[in-house]
Parts: sequence; C-alpha cells; structure tokens
Amino acid sequence: MRVLGVDPGLTRCGLGVVDGSVGRPLTKIEVGVARTAADLAIEKRLLMLESELDAWIQRHRPDVVAIERVFSQHNVSTVMGTAQASAVAMLVAARHGLPVAMHTPSEVKASVTGSGRADKAQVTQMVTRLLRLTEAPKPADAADALALAICHIWRGGAQTRLEAAVLKATSGATR
Amino acid sequence: MRVLGVDPGLTRCGLGVVDGSVGRPLTKIEVGVARTAADLAIEKRLLMLESELDAWIQRHRPDVVAIERVFSQHNVSTVMGTAQASAVAMLVAARHGLPVAMHTPSEVKASVTGSGRADKAQVTQMVTRLLRLTEAPKPADAADALALAICHIWRGGAQTRLEAAVLKATSGATR
Repeated sequence: MRVLGVDPGLTRCGLGVVDGSVGRPLTKIEVGVARTAADLAIEKRLLMLESELDAWIQRHRPDVVAIERVFSQHNVSTVMGTAQASAVAMLVAARHGLPVAMHTPSEVKASVTGSGRADKAQVTQMVTRLLRLTEAPKPADAADALALAICHIWRGGAQTRLEAAVLKATSGATR
Repeated sequence: MRVLGVDPGLTRCGLGVVDGSVGRPLTKIEVGVARTAADLAIEKRLLMLESELDAWIQRHRPDVVAIERVFSQHNVSTVMGTAQASAVAMLVAARHGLPVAMHTPSEVKASVTGSGRADKAQVTQMVTRLLRLTEAPKPADAADALALAICHIWRGGAQTRLEAAVLKATSGATR
C-alpha cells in the first residue's frame, strides 16, 4: 500500500509518501513541504497548494491520502488556515478518485511512538528509525506527514485484517 | 459590477448573483442553494460543491466573488464545514482569475439593513425590497448570499470612490 500523508497548513504543508504493509519494512518514497507566502491572498495560496498536491499525486499515484484531522481547540487563526488547506487536500484526492482517511494527532503519535502524548522530537526520531533514514526529516511538518502515512499503513492494515477475520469467522459460522 | 455572493456551508451553501453599482438599482440575476448530503464523505461533498460553484461562475461570469468571512467563535463542528466550503469557493474563484472579497456577517447586515445586529428576518426583508423581488428568497442562506453580493457592490463601490478621491486629492497636491 502506498500512502500520501498530508499535514495540512497554508504556510507549511507537510507531504510524505510511504510504501508498506503491516509486518513488513516501510519505505520512504518522497518527503517535503509545500510552502506558500503569507503575504499572498488566501485564494492564491490555496491555488498553489492545490497544484502542489496534484503534482505529488500524479507523481506517486498513492492508494490513499491520509490527512491530519483538524480540531478547533487550537489557535483560532491557525485552525482556519489548517481547515482550508485540509479541504484542498481532500478535494484534490477526491478528484483523483482516491480514498481519504483522517487521523487525529494523538492517533498518529500513538501509532508511531506507542504514546498518544509523545512530543515532536519523539515522533521525528521514530519516523527516522522506522524508515531507516540517514538523517531526520525536517521541518517537523515533513516528519508529521511521514508519521501520518505510517499510521495509516498500520491502522488501515489492522482494520483490514480485523474485517477479514470477522468475515472469516462469520462465514465459518454459517457454513 | 456583477457579484457572486457565497454564504459558505457544506449542507447548504447559499449562492446569489447581483448586478449593480452604487446609487443605481440592483438586479437579481440568480439565487439558489447548493446542497450536499450529510451522509456522504466530506471529500465527495467538497467535490460536489466545487462543481456547483464552477457552474455558477461559468454561467454568470461575475466580476468578483464575495464570501462570508468565517469566525471560529461559532459552533465547533459547523465552523469546520464552513471553513472547508469557504476554501472551495476561494479556490474556484482563484482558478477563474476572479478577485475574492470577504465580508463579515455584521458588515453584511450593516450594509443591507443599517444595523450590524439585524436578525435574519430583517436581512431577508431588506434583500427582498432592494432587489424588488415578488417573494422573499428562501432559505435564509440564499437571502444571505444576495445580501453579501449587495454588501460588496455598495462597500466595494464606496471603497473605489474613496480611493479615487484620495488619488485625486494626492495628485492635486503634487500638481
């Protein structure tokens, strides 16, 4: 499974593509950050972000786009930019017919480090180790995007295995 | 000046096109609501909204898209949908090379009724009168979209006149 992880933001939008499946080594395909200048009009920034996301999807053909779920309890002005960037990511994914999965920050942290309250340094450290990178991905948004992709591979995989097990058990019972 | 007013929302997105300029009668061109079903995935809803907005812009070729500015102090779950719908509206406008103007709810109310604290009924009543409609536009989102367009025509007009006056005064001083 190939996953494009998106840590949405207008100023910095983390993007990370990871290949993998549960119980197998993970491979980093590409990681980066899409930036748009804060002095541009918001609609222009959204348009730039859209074309960047489109280019990543065209280039890597992911199976799923995993996006960090935005919460309103954050800083008011930040959350608006995050919600808007997240909407653009969902829209571009939908236009390519790709499924969108949302994971909360604590789900991502728990998946990757084992603790939902891990700090950014711990997440970056585990991402670097899990993907066998020679250096830590920077900035934190880039590491977060990789963490999101890993979280989806593991959670999505667990979900799929669970569903398969339930299906098997059910079909066994009716046979 | 032709303005497309957008009252952003995922469940109901109000859309209204008005022609006019300061000091002249206003004309309603079209009013309606784009709806998306709450049981669809958000990314599908955003995609539907995008194609609806695109159709309105193609059909009416507005000079400006005026969108209600979203605030975070509203209900948490509503504000996310509103921010996402608003991002899609900005994106579609930018793709068509159209300027985007944001107006706050109180700016819109003040423009149309004379009071920034007018209620929905008062806004609808004034919109109906100003556009010489035979019946009140429904639902409230549709009336709000028309109010946004009217607000932009009047404020935008005032802004333009003010800038022209400043320019004239400045050029007079340097002559």
